[in-house]
Amino acid sequence: VNTRLPRVGTTIFTVMSQLALDHDAVNLGQGFPDFEVPDFLVEACDRAMREGRNQYAPMTGMPALRQAIAAKSEAMYGRRVNPDTEVTVTSGASEAIFDTVLALVHPGDEVIVLDPAYDSYEPAIALAGARAVHVPLDPTSFAVDWQRLADAIGPKTRMLMVNTPHNPSGAMLAAADLDRLAGLLRDTPIVLLSDEVYEHIVFDDNRHESALRHPELADRAVVVSSFGKTYHCTGWKVGYAIAPPPLSAELRKVHQYNTFCTPAPTQLAFAEAITQHPQHHLGLGAFYQDKRDAFRAQLARTKFRPLPVPGGYFQLCDYSAISDLPDAEFCRWLTVEHGVTGIPLSPFYEEPPAGQRLIRFCFAKAPATLERAVERLALIG
Amino acid sequence: VNTRLPRVGTTIFTVMSQLALDHDAVNLGQGFPDFEVPDFLVEACDRAMREGRNQYAPMTGMPALRQAIAAKSEAMYGRRVNPDTEVTVTSGASEAIFDTVLALVHPGDEVIVLDPAYDSYEPAIALAGARAVHVPLDPTSFAVDWQRLADAIGPKTRMLMVNTPHNPSGAMLAAADLDRLAGLLRDTPIVLLSDEVYEHIVFDDNRHESALRHPELADRAVVVSSFGKTYHCTGWKVGYAIAPPPLSAELRKVHQYNTFCTPAPTQLAFAEAITQHPQHHLGLGAFYQDKRDAFRAQLARTKFRPLPVPGGYFQLCDYSAISDLPDAEFCRWLTVEHGVTGIPLSPFYEEPPAGQRLIRFCFAKAPATLERAVERLALIG
Ligand SMILES: CSCCC(=O)C(=O)O
Ligand SMILES: CSCCC(=O)C(=O)O
Repeated sequence: VNTRLPRVGTTIFTVMSQLALDHDAVNLGQGFPDFEVPDFLVEACDRAMREGRNQYAPMTGMPALRQAIAAKSEAMYGRRVNPDTEVTVTSGASEAIFDTVLALVHPGDEVIVLDPAYDSYEPAIALAGARAVHVPLDPTSFAVDWQRLADAIGPKTRMLMVNTPHNPSGAMLAAADLDRLAGLLRDTPIVLLSDEVYEHIVFDDNRHESALRHPELADRAVVVSSFGKTYHCTGWKVGYAIAPPPLSAELRKVHQYNTFCTPAPTQLAFAEAITQHPQHHLGLGAFYQDKRDAFRAQLARTKFRPLPVPGGYFQLCDYSAISDLPDAEFCRWLTVEHGVTGIPLSPFYEEPPAGQRLIRFCFAKAPATLERAVERLALIG
Repeated sequence: VNTRLPRVGTTIFTVMSQLALDHDAVNLGQGFPDFEVPDFLVEACDRAMREGRNQYAPMTGMPALRQAIAAKSEAMYGRRVNPDTEVTVTSGASEAIFDTVLALVHPGDEVIVLDPAYDSYEPAIALAGARAVHVPLDPTSFAVDWQRLADAIGPKTRMLMVNTPHNPSGAMLAAADLDRLAGLLRDTPIVLLSDEVYEHIVFDDNRHESALRHPELADRAVVVSSFGKTYHCTGWKVGYAIAPPPLSAELRKVHQYNTFCTPAPTQLAFAEAITQHPQHHLGLGAFYQDKRDAFRAQLARTKFRPLPVPGGYFQLCDYSAISDLPDAEFCRWLTVEHGVTGIPLSPFYEEPPAGQRLIRFCFAKAPATLERAVERLALIG
């Protein structure tokens, strides 16, 4: 079989989850929470099913959910969003990203990706027949290197993908970054694809600077988010894209013939959740900040050096005091020999920084799980 | 915005459903059942959610569901299917088709589509950068025109898409058709994509001839099906693809970066349904045959001339005794003036047969709904 994706193997998240299982390791690899979906969501979904809401949803999403998303986005980010022409519900943020890239990127185009980048971006670009242009973030702060970004923009650039809070680093764009981005994109035809799935998991005094807050950017942006991280249900796969009508119209063309629609009962459940529990997401930052702080405090007993975590639910650690193994080998070794699984950073890069010795741990886990992991990590080195 | 899908508008199903709504018409357009999901499925889904099965499913699908699908396929079609390497669960059959086309079809390739064809096939082909080669079925029997099909096959042909039972006509491939197909594809690199979502809705003495029944075809086929039609839950969006390991490996590469996985709770519910209620689907043919027969009997009071319906839940009717309007205009008129909505056939064609005057009605509706529709239809002409 002549493959269209020669560089694609099984995603690192699946590979490491399987390795963790095989070796009975504490799995802090693949990012998913140990916590439970709020009861009100399960009950609303159950009710929707029992009330017979089990046939196709409208292709663009259930009206009640699109309205709830629009209202929430306006309340949070001050952007007026039209639920009918600017909100599209998808089967997870992944599908929204995939649809957007396939709809807007043409063969021969270039798409700028900031490395380290989530591993689904590049295959979508490749399938669109385009070329991913990788611009590395600063290898320690994960800040945008504005000069390199400016240099990467050319006549073929069709899209720029950003992710804030950033997976794997947790780095966040600041308001000033949005201004710089807007300046760079001004007078170009470049679409901004902003992946904001960790929007509610932000720490300390940080504020999530959604592209929706910035009118100039929002006019050229597809902002993607989902409910998986916000409601502890990564396995329900409901996401969405917010974009100006002409961009929404294009991504809907792909969505319409890709999944057509997203399951109706969970859409109705999220519509109800957002409307009836509008404060719910406000507690999420504090919830995860406790986990982060506890995990970092415990890591002090180990030779892993934690990097700052402004947002998200991942903790990067420098392991150079323990080993000089490249990260993929180190992560294997850590699973097999020490029973703790993390994710190497190199799969997030086209070209990993020479000598980078970082591992990503997910701290969206029960306290006992994190403690068990740290007990094992403390024995090393 | 420079579109990648210049020929794509809103799907005809959405357009007609909206028109039906606007004019308070009886909607026999978009294909979805009026009937309820069996309680055992709702209960199993509910239990899965309450037991905390709410995080990512494995990318390929829940093992229990893949095993159930494999066992059922072997029992029904005599094809031994490996659940780990040959079954991939997707967010509806649509996603399975989309993934398969994007994974296996290269820019510049040709894909043969038998017209009338479901409207999602062509956009997937276009996004892959390939060309759809349309081969018309016989305009009255909807049988394959073997000579035209043979003539359409060339060095660039990469895939052939078939659909049995066929939407919109209900026509079914016979065992002899599979033999002819196998003969045509022998010694070519052509992949068969067989869309079999109506596999359990077959009437009279017909037997569904899955490509899985035919060892030679099955070795080169991606067979796509779903649970939406079988369990009256088109809005749950769980489908799957069965294909030999090398083909499955490729389509999984796309699935992995498209939706990544399908919701976990409904997957578990279907696994339980197949295992604990293995006879369920056996009643579906008789269930819909009653609907079909009742609807056809009632249509005798109208000037609509029903065509034979071997399978599926659509009734094609010739309306030439009523009107000489082209089908799209006729369907509009029927909705606006007479309060009954059907689907025109022309959107299923690259080039509709000259003078074809057919409308598609969905009879997966409550008896009272079908009666109300026929009362209105009986007033015409
Ligand atoms: C879809 S599996 C990966 C989950 C995730 O977002 C991550 O671990 O980064
Ligand atoms: C996805 S909406 C269309 C449903 C359907 O399969 C049809 O009406 O043909």
